Amino acid sequence: MSSSIIGKKVKVASVGLDSFFNDLKNEGADAVKVDWKPPAGGAPAALKVLEDLECEEVDEANSKAISAILSAEPKFVGMAIAKEVIPELKGMSLSHSGPPIKWERMSGPMKGAIIGAAIYEGWIKDESEINELIKGEQIKFMADHDVSAVGPMAGVISPDMPVYIVQNATTGNKAYTNFNEGVGKVLRYGAYGKEVIDRLNWMKDTLYPMFKESVSKMGPLSLKPIMSQSLQMGDELHTRNVASTLLFIKEIAPYMTGGGFTSSQISQAISFMGGNNLFFLNLAMAAGKVTMDAASGINKSTIVTALTRNGTDFGIKVSGLGKEWFTAPAPVPKTLFFPGFKEGDANPDIGDSAIMETNGFGAFSSAASPAVTQVVGSSVSEAIRVTRRMYEITAARDKSFPIPALNFEGIPRGIDLRLVIETSISPTINTGVAHRLPGMGTVGFGIVDAPLGAFDKALQRFGQIV
Amino acid sequence: MSSSIIGKKVKVASVGLDSFFNDLKNEGADAVKVDWKPPAGGAPAALKVLEDLECEEVDEANSKAISAILSAEPKFVGMAIAKEVIPELKGMSLSHSGPPIKWERMSGPMKGAIIGAAIYEGWIKDESEINELIKGEQIKFMADHDVSAVGPMAGVISPDMPVYIVQNATTGNKAYTNFNEGVGKVLRYGAYGKEVIDRLNWMKDTLYPMFKESVSKMGPLSLKPIMSQSLQMGDELHTRNVASTLLFIKEIAPYMTGGGFTSSQISQAISFMGGNNLFFLNLAMAAGKVTMDAASGINKSTIVTALTRNGTDFGIKVSGLGKEWFTAPAPVPKTLFFPGFKEGDANPDIGDSAIMETNGFGAFSSAASPAVTQVVGSSVSEAIRVTRRMYEITAARDKSFPIPALNFEGIPRGIDLRLVIETSISPTINTGVAHRLPGMGTVGFGIVDAPLGAFDKALQRFGQIV
Repeated sequence: MSSSIIGKKVKVASVGLDSFFNDLKNEGADAVKVDWKPPAGGAPAALKVLEDLECEEVDEANSKAISAILSAEPKFVGMAIAKEVIPELKGMSLSHSGPPIKWERMSGPMKGAIIGAAIYEGWIKDESEINELIKGEQIKFMADHDVSAVGPMAGVISPDMPVYIVQNATTGNKAYTNFNEGVGKVLRYGAYGKEVIDRLNWMKDTLYPMFKESVSKMGPLSLKPIMSQSLQMGDELHTRNVASTLLFIKEIAPYMTGGGFTSSQISQAISFMGGNNLFFLNLAMAAGKVTMDAASGINKSTIVTALTRNGTDFGIKVSGLGKEWFTAPAPVPKTLFFPGFKEGDANPDIGDSAIMETNGFGAFSSAASPAVTQVVGSSVSEAIRVTRRMYEITAARDKSFPIPALNFEGIPRGIDLRLVIETSISPTINTGVAHRLPGMGTVGFGIVDAPLGAFDKALQRFGQIV
Repeated sequence: MSSSIIGKKVKVASVGLDSFFNDLKNEGADAVKVDWKPPAGGAPAALKVLEDLECEEVDEANSKAISAILSAEPKFVGMAIAKEVIPELKGMSLSHSGPPIKWERMSGPMKGAIIGAAIYEGWIKDESEINELIKGEQIKFMADHDVSAVGPMAGVISPDMPVYIVQNATTGNKAYTNFNEGVGKVLRYGAYGKEVIDRLNWMKDTLYPMFKESVSKMGPLSLKPIMSQSLQMGDELHTRNVASTLLFIKEIAPYMTGGGFTSSQISQAISFMGGNNLFFLNLAMAAGKVTMDAASGINKSTIVTALTRNGTDFGIKVSGLGKEWFTAPAPVPKTLFFPGFKEGDANPDIGDSAIMETNGFGAFSSAASPAVTQVVGSSVSEAIRVTRRMYEITAARDKSFPIPALNFEGIPRGIDLRLVIETSISPTINTGVAHRLPGMGTVGFGIVDAPLGAFDKALQRFGQIV
């Protein structure tokens, strides 16, 4: 191929397929790649569905969903033992993050967390006994999301674990989530050693009753003001919960004294919270769950109500498609590794914590959190770019959560499946990264794009019903 | 004056004097003002001194001062009653903010705070008795800065007030400051009603012994990490201390339990701190004081070691000029008023809190604090401009305190008198604003530029000694 056919050099602008661009480059042509993709990847069937969904009926349904999201008032209202409030957690049963999955297909960290939970519950003495239980199909598994719960990473909740109760004061629905254990060797990252089980027992025996009493004295705590304020203080509320945790401590600490607890127990509890920059994450997740659940099940609405991963599959739910899961293989996050870990150690994406992005936080609000870029391995300008990109696939900008660096523009909320398909822009997620082997724990933090395949499947289902 | 002398309209670019520009405008000319000023305002005497100060000797002296500033390690090490640690506060004596001043020239809020302190000390029963004391010259007044102390606004410290002890671990020197009372009807803004005195008594009787015990159990608390972290969380540490206060609560709260205090006392203390977004300010000021004191008294150094105001005069100190004050009339801040207050209510600039700017925080770090712009009546872009402007008059950018919005560039530290004179850029200060009458309290927050007159006088003194 000649690059001087008209007497001077031709510069080729290549729009679309990478292969054509690469051919040009290989031929030595002076080509630039223009980042344009045809709507819906150019697939005719998808384009047809998309066209059908571009109608007033869907717009109206989405307005209802968005209104439910913007008007949600999540409050921390109480504490319970999981089996008291999640009726499905009876007997030998566990809920976990992501879409439903069988043991055989579970990732290392998910299996590790289940081993740990089984030890915690007293079903087994150590990991050597887990195969017996599994073979006998004695443990019943279910997805957190299907039982009004969410949990970060493996997200395993067992019957005797303490849970927060968060209620949407606008609609009355509730969600449940566990305590955040910190980072490193912790159950949710698949570790199950003695220190992990000891911490879980301390949470149940000390932290849980203390919190139960404190929240009952304090009364319902509105989570929205804490979340909004923390965005002003550099949190994006998914991988950075520094300010939100401190704001939460400020609220609850005055109610922790005066119960039947020793000063050293109170002191230890405050130190534990203060020493865990992700302590508030679980409450923020439950706030997201009660919000998105309130926006679920609206006929014809294309608003995405769940993004979540179990370490093997990435699953989404869409308001108008009710409780149905649409899945694709979970990608491995682009990871900034802790010292001692490397490429290849990272498990594919895992955790219900992408409820934060579903709800407009995390990577969607990354422009609010310059500091998070140093945790997930990004840059300030890239963080701003991500938030701007997320505006393109969301239906609302919520001024209740202004982003200082964007001149107090509101965060992007309400992912519209139509916009994701149209633009081929996938939701970006900030995330913790687990070791791919059971028993290991956290290897770092990173960034991942939701796989478009799950969205394609949801669109196809709409094609069958609209 | 004709505006069409050469056949088409002349547009005049006016460089320099406002009067010339104003004349042109008054004559109807199409003039634009170019913001350029000759070095040192073009004054020949000042230019001569400036030239003399542009030498290696001064550069070396300034390096020493900057090194003292950057290597300072301020720690909160203990609590005391003022008279126990400030020997000058014996008998009927008071220290106050700003340069020294006599009662007759004191502003309303300063007089109000002194009345309140005299009531607190039991020297008088109410304000009607203050004139007797004053006439008899029974109260000895002194500047906080001259007795190793700092205090925000009126900054009045009386013998029986509790004070924090902050020590510079690098050099050993100490500074003292009082508790922050919150905003509104508070002593430091000139209020002296019952609620003010009651709060001061609660501080002495409850908060002080609790803090004394807590800090003794906790051990010395490094203030630099809290200050650095809080800049990442949107504080500029002068008019916004939201994050620093929470970070401080996180550190001290675990040590507040287990003493001889009831749970309701502890609960009240935590709530008081948590409810006061400026609670940490005083500790940050004392950190500034021990830092700048360590950089003081270095022969020939032109680094500014104090900016402070007493509500009447604005005073500065310069390292190479030792303990001498250089003053100019205190300007009235450009104020964002609380509801119910208006232009004309504001007192001229008052408080030692400009030690924050002297040390590189406050307005100097305003790019770190988008949210503060909404408190002082500015904008995000203006906040960034202010920090950039302060780089022009400071000798160092301190990477220990990175500013996220400036791609983690360090804050501007170490005001060089030579640069202020050369550029005619005055240090900008974020500040609380007091009502001009005694007894009234806070009217808002605002921004003020230090008066260049004080810097001119310091330069003149250098002219006499170099």
